[in-house]
Amino acid sequence: LVSRLQPFTSTIFAEMTALAQRTGAVNLGQGFPDTDGPASMLAAAQQAIADGINQYPPGPGRPELRAAIAEHRAGQYGQQFDQDTEILVTVGATEAIAASLIALVEPGDEVILIEPYYDSYAASVAMAGGVRRAVALRPDPDTGRFTLDVEALRAAAGPKTKALLLNTPHNPTGTVLTDAELAEIADLAQRHDFLVISDEVYEHLLYDGRKHHPIGTFPGMAERTLTISSSGKTFNATGWKIGWVCGPKELIAAVRAAKQFITFVGGAPFQPAVAHALRNELPWVETLRQDLQRKRDRLSEGLAGAGFKVLPSEGTYFICTDVRPLGFDDGATLCRELPERIGVAAIPVQVFCDDPATARHLVRFAYCKRDEVLDEALLRLGKLT
Amino acid sequence: LVSRLQPFTSTIFAEMTALAQRTGAVNLGQGFPDTDGPASMLAAAQQAIADGINQYPPGPGRPELRAAIAEHRAGQYGQQFDQDTEILVTVGATEAIAASLIALVEPGDEVILIEPYYDSYAASVAMAGGVRRAVALRPDPDTGRFTLDVEALRAAAGPKTKALLLNTPHNPTGTVLTDAELAEIADLAQRHDFLVISDEVYEHLLYDGRKHHPIGTFPGMAERTLTISSSGKTFNATGWKIGWVCGPKELIAAVRAAKQFITFVGGAPFQPAVAHALRNELPWVETLRQDLQRKRDRLSEGLAGAGFKVLPSEGTYFICTDVRPLGFDDGATLCRELPERIGVAAIPVQVFCDDPATARHLVRFAYCKRDEVLDEALLRLGKLT
Ligand SMILES: CSCCC(=O)C(=O)O
Ligand SMILES: CSCCC(=O)C(=O)O
Repeated sequence: LVSRLQPFTSTIFAEMTALAQRTGAVNLGQGFPDTDGPASMLAAAQQAIADGINQYPPGPGRPELRAAIAEHRAGQYGQQFDQDTEILVTVGATEAIAASLIALVEPGDEVILIEPYYDSYAASVAMAGGVRRAVALRPDPDTGRFTLDVEALRAAAGPKTKALLLNTPHNPTGTVLTDAELAEIADLAQRHDFLVISDEVYEHLLYDGRKHHPIGTFPGMAERTLTISSSGKTFNATGWKIGWVCGPKELIAAVRAAKQFITFVGGAPFQPAVAHALRNELPWVETLRQDLQRKRDRLSEGLAGAGFKVLPSEGTYFICTDVRPLGFDDGATLCRELPERIGVAAIPVQVFCDDPATARHLVRFAYCKRDEVLDEALLRLGKLT
Repeated sequence: LVSRLQPFTSTIFAEMTALAQRTGAVNLGQGFPDTDGPASMLAAAQQAIADGINQYPPGPGRPELRAAIAEHRAGQYGQQFDQDTEILVTVGATEAIAASLIALVEPGDEVILIEPYYDSYAASVAMAGGVRRAVALRPDPDTGRFTLDVEALRAAAGPKTKALLLNTPHNPTGTVLTDAELAEIADLAQRHDFLVISDEVYEHLLYDGRKHHPIGTFPGMAERTLTISSSGKTFNATGWKIGWVCGPKELIAAVRAAKQFITFVGGAPFQPAVAHALRNELPWVETLRQDLQRKRDRLSEGLAGAGFKVLPSEGTYFICTDVRPLGFDDGATLCRELPERIGVAAIPVQVFCDDPATARHLVRFAYCKRDEVLDEALLRLGKLT
């Protein structure tokens, strides 16, 4: 393995899911739903296979999917993208992020990550030869909400900054960045002339009346933002890996140059199915969202009852907890023991931080699971102390 | 776009297919079949969607697919791979190649490519920060067979060589490397201690009684070879993008480290379908092979009749032709005019060469098309002069 990738040999998700399977633990670690997406979307994929949509799609993606993505961004957020030049279909958001960084970051360029950061971000920056600068989201002492350290962000941004990799709703914390936090990022991006690569895969999963505000809609930002999303989280189809990136045509052309040689294309018969879902199944997504809000409350209350300090989850399908009230100090040690000890898998947040100490005591649980599964996990977690 | 990728803004395949679509030309350019794979494989994918195989598969791929790949390599070639540690499922061979190079090539390392080389090879070497050294396959003056320039290969190999990227059956030439040519590569790999990354996606498409000999089966080579293949060409499913890479466990672990952050995983419900096909549909592949041999002959004879000098196609589904007997000198100019002029799309071979002059007069045609399509193309090509 080359030196730039040596810190990235495994992913915590694969590791914890493998451990869960080995021990038969309830898996609240890796974030994937245990029910499938809308029936009409599954049927559309089956039909596409029958209809012979099984050979290479066009490099940028099938036209009906690009049209549906353009309509969706316009309908939801008023964003305007030309389907022919400003939208690129990718193998999930993961490829969209890797290709964007590989296409746009020269060796030595700095990329700001919001910490704790999803693990592929740091690895993708390394693949591009970039240098990452982490800026923390930190639990507010009063409310527990993870809040952007604006002073640290200002200090990190500068002439070497090529891009900021944003994620809201934010994994792993469950935070939805406020308009004020986003405006600060937008202001710095324009002041220091950097790009924002915005991972919005949880764009539909916000709770308690919150609304998703894409940073690309902030004044002056459309021209310097790559907006990334996917069907995985919106339509419970994480294994299909249909994602997309939208942005100004020069930037999309650059990302396409990298993407075409990374995977070329992907998932031909899923593309019309996801186009169908974007056009017809947003009511299904609203039901999913309401279900997830309920599940969030169910798991939050259960975890609090079991003695965890529960931090607020404003979006995504993750909750972070502080394990110190239970007498534990190191979340990573705890997560490695939990499956064996009580039959539950979870994710230590410190693996997403440059300085593990900042999140040593935090553990993330996923709530995108059937109620019985959440209840069984809670029953087991009740026996932790 | 970063400087290392500036030579790679578009791919000739996307370009020519788009041109073919715009002009309504018969597309013998991009190599994809116009009929789908075995019915039982398509049905297995539909069933997998119904069975709920729609969420993230395990990082290395679903176990039944890794088992089927191991059995296939053992049954066909006597190669032994441990399904748990020595096989990784990828988003097509393209991702397998990109991830292998990104994982194993340090900036400045040299990678030998056999020229003319498939266009993603050079781009992937560039993404890794490597330096490519091209070694030519050149038409033999007597037989027309593209033959490895062994002297040039010996001169290119040395202490800076990190890997040689091999491809046999070879795209775009249609050559099947001989045992003597492969032995030369194997010898140099051991002498200079470099890896061989072997793209074998046409492993089942050899004609006139030829047999595929994976370089990983040559003495001393198993420990330094990554063997790459896919379901796209074998089972007429180029749009599913299910590929794989097999090799010693340290190398596979390295490739997995890169791959997990490039796409994470891919095509969940296709994985059991391809496992099924590898186990049950090799007779279908033999019929495909026989059909393709017939199609090769049909197209070769037709092209010769139309005045092209046809070079031998020993494998793949491509034929190279010399256009000088027709009075043309520059294949690239010709290919850009052909769709408009007579309604046929083809690929200029010079775009796969460091020095375009070496293949200026060569044009590649794909024969993985229905007989009517080949005949229509020939009818039109008959009117070229
Ligand atoms: C790519 S595997 C991880 C799924 C996920 O997004 C998460 O659990 O955070
Ligand atoms: C990846 S698109 C090109 C398909 C192909 O392998 C070819 O035409 O050579």
